[in-house]
Amino acid sequence: MNHLDTPQLLGVLVLILGSAKLAGALAKRIGQPAVLGELVAGVVLGVSVLGLVSPKNEVLHFLAELGVVILLFEIGLETDLGKLIQVGGTATAVAIVGVVLPFAGGYAVCRFLGLDNLVSIVAGATLTATSVGITARVLTDLGRLQEPESQIVLGAAVIDDILGLIILAVVGGLIEGQAVTILGVAKITGIAFGFLIATLLLGTLLVPLLVRWFSRINIPGTPTILGIMLAFGLAWLASAAGSAMIIGAFTAGLLLRKTPQAHAIEVGIASLGHFFVPIFFVVVGSAVDFRVFNPGDRANWPTLWIGGLLVVVAVLGKFLAGYAPFWFRGRKVVIGVGMIPRGEVGLIFAQMGLASGIFNSGLFSAITLMVMITTFLAPPLLRLLFPPGPPGTKPVTPEGIQDLITEP
Amino acid sequence: MNHLDTPQLLGVLVLILGSAKLAGALAKRIGQPAVLGELVAGVVLGVSVLGLVSPKNEVLHFLAELGVVILLFEIGLETDLGKLIQVGGTATAVAIVGVVLPFAGGYAVCRFLGLDNLVSIVAGATLTATSVGITARVLTDLGRLQEPESQIVLGAAVIDDILGLIILAVVGGLIEGQAVTILGVAKITGIAFGFLIATLLLGTLLVPLLVRWFSRINIPGTPTILGIMLAFGLAWLASAAGSAMIIGAFTAGLLLRKTPQAHAIEVGIASLGHFFVPIFFVVVGSAVDFRVFNPGDRANWPTLWIGGLLVVVAVLGKFLAGYAPFWFRGRKVVIGVGMIPRGEVGLIFAQMGLASGIFNSGLFSAITLMVMITTFLAPPLLRLLFPPGPPGTKPVTPEGIQDLITEP
Repeated sequence: MNHLDTPQLLGVLVLILGSAKLAGALAKRIGQPAVLGELVAGVVLGVSVLGLVSPKNEVLHFLAELGVVILLFEIGLETDLGKLIQVGGTATAVAIVGVVLPFAGGYAVCRFLGLDNLVSIVAGATLTATSVGITARVLTDLGRLQEPESQIVLGAAVIDDILGLIILAVVGGLIEGQAVTILGVAKITGIAFGFLIATLLLGTLLVPLLVRWFSRINIPGTPTILGIMLAFGLAWLASAAGSAMIIGAFTAGLLLRKTPQAHAIEVGIASLGHFFVPIFFVVVGSAVDFRVFNPGDRANWPTLWIGGLLVVVAVLGKFLAGYAPFWFRGRKVVIGVGMIPRGEVGLIFAQMGLASGIFNSGLFSAITLMVMITTFLAPPLLRLLFPPGPPGTKPVTPEGIQDLITEP
Repeated sequence: MNHLDTPQLLGVLVLILGSAKLAGALAKRIGQPAVLGELVAGVVLGVSVLGLVSPKNEVLHFLAELGVVILLFEIGLETDLGKLIQVGGTATAVAIVGVVLPFAGGYAVCRFLGLDNLVSIVAGATLTATSVGITARVLTDLGRLQEPESQIVLGAAVIDDILGLIILAVVGGLIEGQAVTILGVAKITGIAFGFLIATLLLGTLLVPLLVRWFSRINIPGTPTILGIMLAFGLAWLASAAGSAMIIGAFTAGLLLRKTPQAHAIEVGIASLGHFFVPIFFVVVGSAVDFRVFNPGDRANWPTLWIGGLLVVVAVLGKFLAGYAPFWFRGRKVVIGVGMIPRGEVGLIFAQMGLASGIFNSGLFSAITLMVMITTFLAPPLLRLLFPPGPPGTKPVTPEGIQDLITEP
């Protein structure tokens, strides 16, 4: 299953797209965001049920990564940098509290259960990073991406991702037994935030020139290709500079938003998004192996017990972070719930812990349970607290983003 | 270079898309089809110059395959099945003569040079299959896809691909030392043509139902996903039934052309095509290793000598096939030239021959030379014989297809 030839991969893609579409439409019909249906479709196709989609397949893994890069690029194209800076203080407060509380809570839980100091630190780290992909997609599905609460969640999730990278580097060092110096941490922090700021400053100067130069190639499709090149290019650059790909892609969207080509780019990228984005969510869902959570098997009890406590800490920590900006007059509960889903970064920590022998498979499974439950919990909760926009706004669809896009 | 992580792949994709766009625009400026520029960009990025793009990378290989599948789907969407059937007899004559003459010529050349009987048969087989991808793309670039000559070339190239698969199966059997029975050949032939006919008949009944059912999911992006699913699904089915993926994708296009959703599908697929199709041509170009053709090195002389003779036979055989339908009153020279490019199928034969030890590396390189020269020869020749359509038609661009598409 991990290696497939081209025709087989085409068959798997048909299954992924078809079931994502079907499950997305069903989710919509019962009033849920389409992304929830896509995640469920992934679970059904994935390792624990049908075994047809494996996140370990190199090509599927890459297509899924393209999906999240394109999604964050689309979100960036929708995001007004001015508005984002306006909510910057609020978002920073949410991000910092939302990293500190779950980390401290996770560490405390593990120590309480008698685990080692290093194990507890790594486990705490897995609880820190919000999955910006899931949250952004749910807010888009609900047609609420432009609300202040959504902008705060988005900003906080981006800062969170940067903090997650810093923690990742530090924890990676700890696992390898390196001494962690303040200078080392400061360097990582500088690079991570420096990339974002430098790209935004340089990009504001250079991107309009690039767009003007490119628009001289007067052939259809040029705006789409220009958008892809900037998104992929900054994603690569971000990664090479020690930051995260999705931050590069998001920045590319922010930079292109104000150019005259923005609309043409959005229309072209939307079609690519229809293809790539569902692959990401189905592949995320396919990684869930819920056989280890069967409560009928007593061997799973310790995992369920630790996992349950970690879920409580993970949910409460982010939820309370929503109330950190006490000066904000909007609906803080929406911010707290929007920050709940964990994703890729948490799983990367967990896999590092497992590979280095710090985590046993029980703790690894408990963390997977935490990632899974937080991911599945947020979409219906958000839907409840933050019903789809008023009739004037666009329908709640997996392609809701295109509707937003095609508005002036 | 054969394995790259996700950020590196994103960087390579930026290089591929950027250089394809640039070289395509330059080719256009000197009056050549854009696809020629993309092939040259591939040579420069590929194994013999910069070594940045390798056709052996699993992900790039798959993206390139998606590119040719999407291209043939787009061509199918542009092709009127009725017109294609009208030219069916003419196309069949071109296809059959265009397989027999190069095969006989290649066999004769190899025997004349003292090669073994089996070696000569396999070498002859490598000369048979026209690359429908290259020719269709050039005709699209020139805005000439709807002319009768183009329709004949397209029809003949599709039949050619089916004949190529039959020969592939027979030659594969010969290489493995199996006896070739008439019954066996008849079975392969039946499957190959049977797939096309059965799919067209069943599809004409079922596809309108599928489209009507799908259009009840009233969310943007649905037509694009429906198109992709049918194209990939039939490509997979074709391959599983012993036919070729691109024939399945082409059939999907033919079937969707008459549905009410055709226009929406074309628009969405065009954006995907802008991304995937250039990857195919750049990866094809990247496989060219012209170091073995350096005439300064005497060791390369036998290869150049055999290769040169094979090129003559390959070009003449297909060119004369254009005159096979003596009853056709159009420009037969255009048909002959349109059939010249060889591609994937020829290289697959050559690799089979090399892997089984029937070909030495010299003969393998000579065949690569033949594939390369025929591929690079056809675009400028076609451009010369078949100048871009009158001013009323759309511009000659790598995305010329989108222009055709957006016409009613």
